[in-house]
Amino acid sequence: MSTIIPQFSDIQDAHNRIKSFIHKTPVLSSNSINEILNINLSFKCENFQKVGAFKFRGATNAVRLLDKKEVEKGVTTHSSGNHAAALSLAAKQLGVPAHIVMPTSAPEIKKKAVEGYGAKITFCEPTLQAREETLRIVQSKTGATFIHPYDNFNVICGQGTSAKELLEEVPDLDVIIAPIGGGGLMSGTVISAKSINPEIKVYGAEPLNADDAFRSFKQGVFIPAGPPNTIADGLLTSLSPLTFQIIRENLDDILTAREETIVEAMRMIWERMKIIVEPSAAVPLAAIIENKYLFKGKKIGLIVSGGNVDLNNLPF
Amino acid sequence: MSTIIPQFSDIQDAHNRIKSFIHKTPVLSSNSINEILNINLSFKCENFQKVGAFKFRGATNAVRLLDKKEVEKGVTTHSSGNHAAALSLAAKQLGVPAHIVMPTSAPEIKKKAVEGYGAKITFCEPTLQAREETLRIVQSKTGATFIHPYDNFNVICGQGTSAKELLEEVPDLDVIIAPIGGGGLMSGTVISAKSINPEIKVYGAEPLNADDAFRSFKQGVFIPAGPPNTIADGLLTSLSPLTFQIIRENLDDILTAREETIVEAMRMIWERMKIIVEPSAAVPLAAIIENKYLFKGKKIGLIVSGGNVDLNNLPF
Repeated sequence: MSTIIPQFSDIQDAHNRIKSFIHKTPVLSSNSINEILNINLSFKCENFQKVGAFKFRGATNAVRLLDKKEVEKGVTTHSSGNHAAALSLAAKQLGVPAHIVMPTSAPEIKKKAVEGYGAKITFCEPTLQAREETLRIVQSKTGATFIHPYDNFNVICGQGTSAKELLEEVPDLDVIIAPIGGGGLMSGTVISAKSINPEIKVYGAEPLNADDAFRSFKQGVFIPAGPPNTIADGLLTSLSPLTFQIIRENLDDILTAREETIVEAMRMIWERMKIIVEPSAAVPLAAIIENKYLFKGKKIGLIVSGGNVDLNNLPF
Repeated sequence: MSTIIPQFSDIQDAHNRIKSFIHKTPVLSSNSINEILNINLSFKCENFQKVGAFKFRGATNAVRLLDKKEVEKGVTTHSSGNHAAALSLAAKQLGVPAHIVMPTSAPEIKKKAVEGYGAKITFCEPTLQAREETLRIVQSKTGATFIHPYDNFNVICGQGTSAKELLEEVPDLDVIIAPIGGGGLMSGTVISAKSINPEIKVYGAEPLNADDAFRSFKQGVFIPAGPPNTIADGLLTSLSPLTFQIIRENLDDILTAREETIVEAMRMIWERMKIIVEPSAAVPLAAIIENKYLFKGKKIGLIVSGGNVDLNNLPF
């Protein structure tokens, strides 16, 4: 499945499939941020999505496409974050068992959320190897279907529905910008945006301290993520072969942002818009702040990926 | 002016007057909070109002009613918080000079906001006496019109437009609850609510540690606020003769909340709704949590008064 590239018609189908299960998130703007930065921004607020992140779109699409036998055996994934919660809730809503492999280092709030949705958690050491190994054990025990957080056709189609909604509400955008972690949101976003308007520019935004997608994109070869060193904890993962291919072939550019600008952007959104966004969701605004010349006079849409933060551990 | 009680027709006039200058703030609900508390809540989100608080409604109404001579000489007030910012912006939008008396102890963020709106600040010692004395000096120098934060007919009419909008959007509420500080929001709210639906119950919410309005209401005599000892820094002030009269004659009851419940309610709103509300704005939800038996099976509207918090000084 993962060598086939999703088309916009797949995203349209996904949207029809998941529409009644997801929130149609609001598009907000802030006169005050527009004035400070002298730009024109529309924020597509996936922080108000169920489980507080866009991930619920992709997980719901994947779960709703399971066949009868797969529904019985359930789904599984490894994730320390929003995908775990999203898959758990999407599975719960359909009465599907969910088996989640989480590193012991995962934030307490995420563990609680996953438990709250009735998923069965198997903890493992916080390494990719341990996660994959534990997942294989869980899979062989349960027969559950692995729903990868982004290297998955159906997940990417679900994520692409956010940009589709954004462009339906604000059709005259010149630019769309989204954060890049594993590239699922970015892939769905660029397919939707370029299909709806071939003239639109689509940028990815990445922390400078986790710029593996930036370097992969620039050099044209896949470079895995190095050791994570960024506050944007949703953007630590590497691209997959599928997301790298989509991004390389469709994206206009990838912009990076320094850590202090990410915190500045996050603070600006909290203070000026009175909404809670997680650090990863502030990376696109940070990239805009650091590359203002690109956006002068443009109408910009920005995907706010999520709003799950640990209030006991804020950067300000 | 301040011995005349505003009627609902005055609030309707105020609404027509200020409509194009204010935000029509959204009404949000949270399945997750409704499930946790087993109630049905609609949040009228004045944290998304201009300057981040309902105060902009009353200030705009007052400023738009100045005559030509008053417009020239400007407006003045003493305030450490949201009313100062609201009056400054309302005045700026009409090209009216604003002279604000602020205690030196006012939060930096509020000082900056007021300056940013082009008002002239005169600092004074953080006592009511110093504030009133300094205001008199400013007034005699400038001839500016004093816009009291709540003991003002036009301000109360402006504040009442929030509950009016809420009931226009959710007409079948059984209960409305709002925080009480000086009583301007509460007065406007109860006049609007009881006029639109005489059957509706209207409650005030107050921190137990600043329960002067509660005690005044219960004993039927005005009791001034004691020394402040609550995180809800918007609710430290005493009622005025005008607001006490309106509240005493119209309110169904005043409910109090403990400090830890206020922080719990604030955190619940931040985490579950992904919106930023200030401690004062969480007091109604805290009062609901502490008095759940009153709200069983009821459809409740709650005025979220504002969202101005100092991110460097959070209670969690």
